[in-house]
Amino acid sequence: MSESPNALRYGPPDASLAPRYTGIRTFARCPYVTDLSGVDVGIVGVPFDTATSFRPGARFGPEGIRASSALIRPWHPQLSVDVFAGRSVVDSGDIAITPGNAERTLEQVSTGVGRLLRAGVTPIVLGGDHSIVLGELRAHAEQHGPVPLVLLDAHADIWDSYYGERYFHGTPFRRACEEGLIDAERSVLAGMRGPLYAASDLADAEALGFDLIPGPELEGMAPAEYADRVKGRLRGAPAFFSFDIDVIDPAFAPGTGTPEVAGLTPPHALGLVRSLAGIEFLGYDLVEVSPAYDTAGQVTSLLAANVIFEFLALHALRASERDEAP
Amino acid sequence: MSESPNALRYGPPDASLAPRYTGIRTFARCPYVTDLSGVDVGIVGVPFDTATSFRPGARFGPEGIRASSALIRPWHPQLSVDVFAGRSVVDSGDIAITPGNAERTLEQVSTGVGRLLRAGVTPIVLGGDHSIVLGELRAHAEQHGPVPLVLLDAHADIWDSYYGERYFHGTPFRRACEEGLIDAERSVLAGMRGPLYAASDLADAEALGFDLIPGPELEGMAPAEYADRVKGRLRGAPAFFSFDIDVIDPAFAPGTGTPEVAGLTPPHALGLVRSLAGIEFLGYDLVEVSPAYDTAGQVTSLLAANVIFEFLALHALRASERDEAP
Amino acid sequence: MSESPNALRYGPPDASLAPRYTGIRTFARCPYVTDLSGVDVGIVGVPFDTATSFRPGARFGPEGIRASSALIRPWHPQLSVDVFAGRSVVDSGDIAITPGNAERTLEQVSTGVGRLLRAGVTPIVLGGDHSIVLGELRAHAEQHGPVPLVLLDAHADIWDSYYGERYFHGTPFRRACEEGLIDAERSVLAGMRGPLYAASDLADAEALGFDLIPGPELEGMAPAEYADRVKGRLRGAPAFFSFDIDVIDPAFAPGTGTPEVAGLTPPHALGLVRSLAGIEFLGYDLVEVSPAYDTAGQVTSLLAANVIFEFLALHALRASERDEAP
Amino acid sequence: MSESPNALRYGPPDASLAPRYTGIRTFARCPYVTDLSGVDVGIVGVPFDTATSFRPGARFGPEGIRASSALIRPWHPQLSVDVFAGRSVVDSGDIAITPGNAERTLEQVSTGVGRLLRAGVTPIVLGGDHSIVLGELRAHAEQHGPVPLVLLDAHADIWDSYYGERYFHGTPFRRACEEGLIDAERSVLAGMRGPLYAASDLADAEALGFDLIPGPELEGMAPAEYADRVKGRLRGAPAFFSFDIDVIDPAFAPGTGTPEVAGLTPPHALGLVRSLAGIEFLGYDLVEVSPAYDTAGQVTSLLAANVIFEFLALHALRASERDEAP
Amino acid sequence: MSESPNALRYGPPDASLAPRYTGIRTFARCPYVTDLSGVDVGIVGVPFDTATSFRPGARFGPEGIRASSALIRPWHPQLSVDVFAGRSVVDSGDIAITPGNAERTLEQVSTGVGRLLRAGVTPIVLGGDHSIVLGELRAHAEQHGPVPLVLLDAHADIWDSYYGERYFHGTPFRRACEEGLIDAERSVLAGMRGPLYAASDLADAEALGFDLIPGPELEGMAPAEYADRVKGRLRGAPAFFSFDIDVIDPAFAPGTGTPEVAGLTPPHALGLVRSLAGIEFLGYDLVEVSPAYDTAGQVTSLLAANVIFEFLALHALRASERDEAP
Amino acid sequence: MSESPNALRYGPPDASLAPRYTGIRTFARCPYVTDLSGVDVGIVGVPFDTATSFRPGARFGPEGIRASSALIRPWHPQLSVDVFAGRSVVDSGDIAITPGNAERTLEQVSTGVGRLLRAGVTPIVLGGDHSIVLGELRAHAEQHGPVPLVLLDAHADIWDSYYGERYFHGTPFRRACEEGLIDAERSVLAGMRGPLYAASDLADAEALGFDLIPGPELEGMAPAEYADRVKGRLRGAPAFFSFDIDVIDPAFAPGTGTPEVAGLTPPHALGLVRSLAGIEFLGYDLVEVSPAYDTAGQVTSLLAANVIFEFLALHALRASERDEAP
Repeated sequence: MSESPNALRYGPPDASLAPRYTGIRTFARCPYVTDLSGVDVGIVGVPFDTATSFRPGARFGPEGIRASSALIRPWHPQLSVDVFAGRSVVDSGDIAITPGNAERTLEQVSTGVGRLLRAGVTPIVLGGDHSIVLGELRAHAEQHGPVPLVLLDAHADIWDSYYGERYFHGTPFRRACEEGLIDAERSVLAGMRGPLYAASDLADAEALGFDLIPGPELEGMAPAEYADRVKGRLRGAPAFFSFDIDVIDPAFAPGTGTPEVAGLTPPHALGLVRSLAGIEFLGYDLVEVSPAYDTAGQVTSLLAANVIFEFLALHALRASERDEAP
Repeated sequence: MSESPNALRYGPPDASLAPRYTGIRTFARCPYVTDLSGVDVGIVGVPFDTATSFRPGARFGPEGIRASSALIRPWHPQLSVDVFAGRSVVDSGDIAITPGNAERTLEQVSTGVGRLLRAGVTPIVLGGDHSIVLGELRAHAEQHGPVPLVLLDAHADIWDSYYGERYFHGTPFRRACEEGLIDAERSVLAGMRGPLYAASDLADAEALGFDLIPGPELEGMAPAEYADRVKGRLRGAPAFFSFDIDVIDPAFAPGTGTPEVAGLTPPHALGLVRSLAGIEFLGYDLVEVSPAYDTAGQVTSLLAANVIFEFLALHALRASERDEAP
Repeated sequence: MSESPNALRYGPPDASLAPRYTGIRTFARCPYVTDLSGVDVGIVGVPFDTATSFRPGARFGPEGIRASSALIRPWHPQLSVDVFAGRSVVDSGDIAITPGNAERTLEQVSTGVGRLLRAGVTPIVLGGDHSIVLGELRAHAEQHGPVPLVLLDAHADIWDSYYGERYFHGTPFRRACEEGLIDAERSVLAGMRGPLYAASDLADAEALGFDLIPGPELEGMAPAEYADRVKGRLRGAPAFFSFDIDVIDPAFAPGTGTPEVAGLTPPHALGLVRSLAGIEFLGYDLVEVSPAYDTAGQVTSLLAANVIFEFLALHALRASERDEAP
Repeated sequence: MSESPNALRYGPPDASLAPRYTGIRTFARCPYVTDLSGVDVGIVGVPFDTATSFRPGARFGPEGIRASSALIRPWHPQLSVDVFAGRSVVDSGDIAITPGNAERTLEQVSTGVGRLLRAGVTPIVLGGDHSIVLGELRAHAEQHGPVPLVLLDAHADIWDSYYGERYFHGTPFRRACEEGLIDAERSVLAGMRGPLYAASDLADAEALGFDLIPGPELEGMAPAEYADRVKGRLRGAPAFFSFDIDVIDPAFAPGTGTPEVAGLTPPHALGLVRSLAGIEFLGYDLVEVSPAYDTAGQVTSLLAANVIFEFLALHALRASERDEAP
Repeated sequence: MSESPNALRYGPPDASLAPRYTGIRTFARCPYVTDLSGVDVGIVGVPFDTATSFRPGARFGPEGIRASSALIRPWHPQLSVDVFAGRSVVDSGDIAITPGNAERTLEQVSTGVGRLLRAGVTPIVLGGDHSIVLGELRAHAEQHGPVPLVLLDAHADIWDSYYGERYFHGTPFRRACEEGLIDAERSVLAGMRGPLYAASDLADAEALGFDLIPGPELEGMAPAEYADRVKGRLRGAPAFFSFDIDVIDPAFAPGTGTPEVAGLTPPHALGLVRSLAGIEFLGYDLVEVSPAYDTAGQVTSLLAANVIFEFLALHALRASERDEAP
Repeated sequence: MSESPNALRYGPPDASLAPRYTGIRTFARCPYVTDLSGVDVGIVGVPFDTATSFRPGARFGPEGIRASSALIRPWHPQLSVDVFAGRSVVDSGDIAITPGNAERTLEQVSTGVGRLLRAGVTPIVLGGDHSIVLGELRAHAEQHGPVPLVLLDAHADIWDSYYGERYFHGTPFRRACEEGLIDAERSVLAGMRGPLYAASDLADAEALGFDLIPGPELEGMAPAEYADRVKGRLRGAPAFFSFDIDVIDPAFAPGTGTPEVAGLTPPHALGLVRSLAGIEFLGYDLVEVSPAYDTAGQVTSLLAANVIFEFLALHALRASERDEAP
């Protein structure tokens, strides 16, 4: 990661001077910066939802998450880290997308994320529906070759096509495998639940080489156990982290497009994310937040903002370790 | 269900036997019938919203309108007609569409509407975003050649493209002109309002041959005056009627994708529709109802169901006239 | 009306001492008083909604109207009257009702309203569905014989029965005629609109002796013209005023059980009520507010509270006139 | 619609051809069929809510559950069964009911369910408030004599009367005992929680012969333990399964009429249902869904649809066992 | 209202006579009484929210809790106590407050609560934002000297100031320490979670002498263990109980001003409260309910009403013990 | 952010390149710029709502208006002007405010607006409650001396104090008169309606020198007539324009803190604003938008954004006139 050039680093303003609900809605009130010099982490939105099989609206996910992120404070008490201190975190705005055209949008996403990666910036992407991850993975693979995937999601998203459409929010990881973007043998997909189309649906994931932990199994799994499983698969390789908000139960995350009942609780899910402290992640995304179906107080967006906070903590801890290495 | 279609005609069940909120939600509780023999009017949904420039969700428009149509009773007191009596009105369900693929969906719409037209059934289409009208117009033009258009809409929908996309909910009438589906010289577009991209936006409509009545002008226009303007353009030709719910003010119709403030009131808008009694319409649609943005009581869907009721009344009156002709 | 016994009169507390949103939610923050001595006007709820043909929930109408009435201030600028000054206005709470049993509830309503009338208290009833008016009319007729009815409503509520049920929110005025409670020849029903079951629906009202002004006619009628029509029918007789909130357009009053599009606007409707200043009313009700279908800010309940404010003003003006008479 | 029932069996259309949100809203997109020949399972609505003690609105429960059931896919991964394969599952629409008249409605329910039972169809009823179960039990008892009851509910519903009303949503199981419809000695009522009227409330259930597991006890009970308890009571007898959605915590199921805090979580509740695999059920119901109090995304209805999915899986497994028996 | 307080004690009316949704909305339908003679427990609202750092609206907390408390029945099955029997419980209405002026409001709260205490009435306060607790503590300390605090809250509320404001909903317990109102050495603060401003935030609580149990630790703590911890601190001293609704997860309590994800579940939280049976509490409050952010069915207010029910049970048990003491 | 301001002027990005729902939510997607050089119009938020007498939440007004302003396009068809062309319009973010402290906030507002004025930037302020206008007027008066006020508002906001508080959202114009900030003799207050505290309320406005047009009178006034009245008062002087969203009927603008029924319609209100074309305004504000009470589609915020669009058009026209002057 490139150190910021001078003394000044980007981060949120001092919350003791003005209430957190003042100011333009960027993520956690970080500055909106498009010039990437001196930036360590870039939060970027991809407001695209053409490729949804049920309820649309994830195009407003980045707006919703940003609005609810005003409540984020800097210190992570469980991981004992200030997620902004010593790092330069910005909101880079949204990548331009093309509603109605998933293929062109994937190119736009790939270009936009690639620009961050080439500048040495770790991208945290706010979706948008899950189809966009294919664009992200193209950019990552172009830099690093096939990347291991750590996925928390109610659906494995490895179907082949929907109504003839191959680029859809239920198909990105099959496409990614076909395009050689993912190192399936080092990947862990967890949280899949709900009725399926056929018995083969989960078997297909394993046929592609993935390790798959179904939701009911994950529900009974302690964070440390999950971390062992993930680390055992990764074998030290850096990975890509994709978090689909529908892995959470709809009571806690109603604002999503294809909700499945009986999902994870937030304490458990956040614990799973935290348990991965120490792993190097090349990038992250948080997808499928659809604010029109959220509660009056937008609890789904608030939860999503807190998942991003966990991502920032994972990143900060890892960066600290690296800084402290001899 | 499906009574035999010989002597008996299709229509809603007797509301004095069971409350109107009982039963499967078809339009106005009409039978769900896909065999078109013996059918005069077929109400059909097109749950497509890929081609929206702001808020998506019109894919749930047909569901919303059907649910709210349970309140429709048969007798139209102003026009003195029972909209179901002596006619056979059915709900034909939805045309299969392809989310994420506007062009393929247009073909599906054209095929589906064409099937109704060839069976002599007058189609009333429940959108869906406005892009679908291009598919409808292709079917109509195939039967009748270029058709005059009577449009009530906040937007003229004649832009050339959005972000490079040519098949979009803001472009169908330009495409329709290019494809020779519309008789622009006999058409009237009314209700356009709100900020525009450029001064040329409305001029472009006139350049295509349309007669355009801006919203502020329409606001001050009595129904009879509007009817004269429309009849003067049509010069006796049968026409296609497209009603975009956003022609109505967002207070009365909040459940839509690109609301514009300061629209028509329902008494005025319904009066405009009623004023066209006597004109022959080959088909109708009601588009852009997006229930996720509606009120708790779904007033937008209720209003849309009442516009369809007006369509049924126009059709019933016209059919009566024809029946009574010597 | 009996004057309050001593110096003290009941009325709202001084709003300059504590905000209007403090305190138990009685109507307009008037004291909750069940002992009727010294009371001029008693506001009383009837939280009953068993007899609804579409959406239930009017049982929460009294709660909703009381909550929103906190915003009512005392001075009526158009009618130049302080609605509480010199009068004793209380909230008498709710009449006990029996959910699931319309007939027994009617007896309870009749008893409860009769108790107010016998104490010389003018009742203002907060519904509840419209079926309850039959209980009110029984109480009034017991005191005064058949009473003229001034009705603002989207429906004439004179159907004979629903699914075999004779006591229903669409039938009270037919029952009242049959029971000899109403002086139909002096009554005016106004505001009826929307699709009907049959052409005979409105004719039936006239057959019962009512004067009926349909909604579209009322829409174009100035308050003074309406007042003339009502006064011409009443010919000086005191009357009962029933206001069904669904006479208002659903954009302004979405929180109701059987909404009809294209209703009155609030300025017009309030103007109609105000135009009746000078007429003596024996009692009033405001029915069919269903808060579960209202907006986040409960605009329907707020509007209902303002209609009650108009009732209080009509009452105050009439009382002043009487006091000033030689 | 209505394909011929000979070789072909009824079931949902292929979801790969058209999105699940297309088409008329029947349960899980199953065909709407009223001719019962060739039908194994009939899903039927009872849109009745007259008999509610707090919030009404369960009359819209069937509509809500059907709308949300569009997301149901056929394969149950935990129980390894395709719930539609090899069976003929239809949506039979709604049983006509009489709002405002619980007694007559009970007769209508009894007749309607009896018609299914006599045709050899297993009924799955979508409520409506819980009072309707008395009509269901009358039909079942007429066929099979007193039936054991498996109940998951926040309330035991064995009160004697409310405000003098004996047919109410808090009284059906007392009435059923009095009418000899239930085999209380083989029944298990579980999940009761929240403040009670008196200490005797739960004791009364036991006095009637029921085994009652209070909510706090059930909360700590593993599915296998619950299954043992139920099987121990049933002693091999077939039973009736009644699931009141309010057994679930209001965070997961806010759309209900008499919510009680601190209920079951969905993973637990679904696990309890699944644990009963192998038991023969003569019929099922899912009651008290009240969509007006649900979230924007209708999570209560979605959960209810998934409970029905579990019912279908229990039925499919049992049918498979029977088919495979020598 | 106000029956005479001699033999008769105050309590809710008989719910078998009229539905619980009838009547003026006082807490649990208890009588609204301001004359404190013969009163044991006084429930009183403080509708103040000036001192909120994020979402305002807690001024409507008392109204919301009262409305939802209609569902409360008298018998507590876990603690085997009728919370109203043998005690006199009233709703005393709201304390007059001054919006926009936290300091003056604190004086008003202190005066109002002091009036209850001097009359021997145990106060249960419905907030309002948490700043008001300082006024309550002033009144308690004036009577009893520094009081031990039992706090369940997502935030420790011991910051020094916000934007220069010292009287704010994040600062009351620091002010209370400075004013000598709290016996910190006997106090337990539990449930703190979420991102913090700095590592020192929790250490500061301990520096003030508090015992602090962070949320993640509390999450894994059984009620009995929690009770031991509290009792060990109290060492027999009577205490003040403050319950901030945001200690609960936002899925169960979305209607609050500064929600933090991953909070307690209601069964756990209610179990924690119940575990304190036997401890003497001088007073209680329930703060930070903000109905505008609640669900359609107001689940947050319902949960709050149930917490008050637990308070009443704690009080009733303790009173019974005292009555039974020789 | 902040491009250099030389030749380039600030304005929204090209909407044909990326959908209007992409990007950080600034007003109309204008750049967020805090360096004021090269800026003509600065839109600035004041997220303050401490001084509200009923429903709070206007602190989220700037966020809501910005979010809904994404729909604004540049061309004003009635006034024939591109509101951004040839001008440099930016979003300057929010002025830091102090929740809970109206007096300090007024100083902050005065300082913040003064900074814009001294830089020659025309400020358009997004409230916030109406109390903030006093800070704005202090800044304007410091530059220009007492300014004429053009006010559209349901309330005259000239009360003296609330519960002892002198700086409140109902008092700013009395304070402004006392401080000599307003030229009352040239001012017009219009739109006042609803119940008042006393007959003197409106007379007081006139005693202060204001010309006051009550709502019912304004309702019947054509825009040209209103413009004449305003121009007749201004007599050529430049003025300050304050628009309180509650001048609009709650059906069109439910998201506000002290709604009054029977307000203006949007076509009328926008027509009134437009009619003032040609008048020079020194500054503008739009206050009292409270998103928590808005509809799902945030129609109040959308309407507010369109009022700002009208302000921009007034400014652009005036600037064009000035540019074209010899």
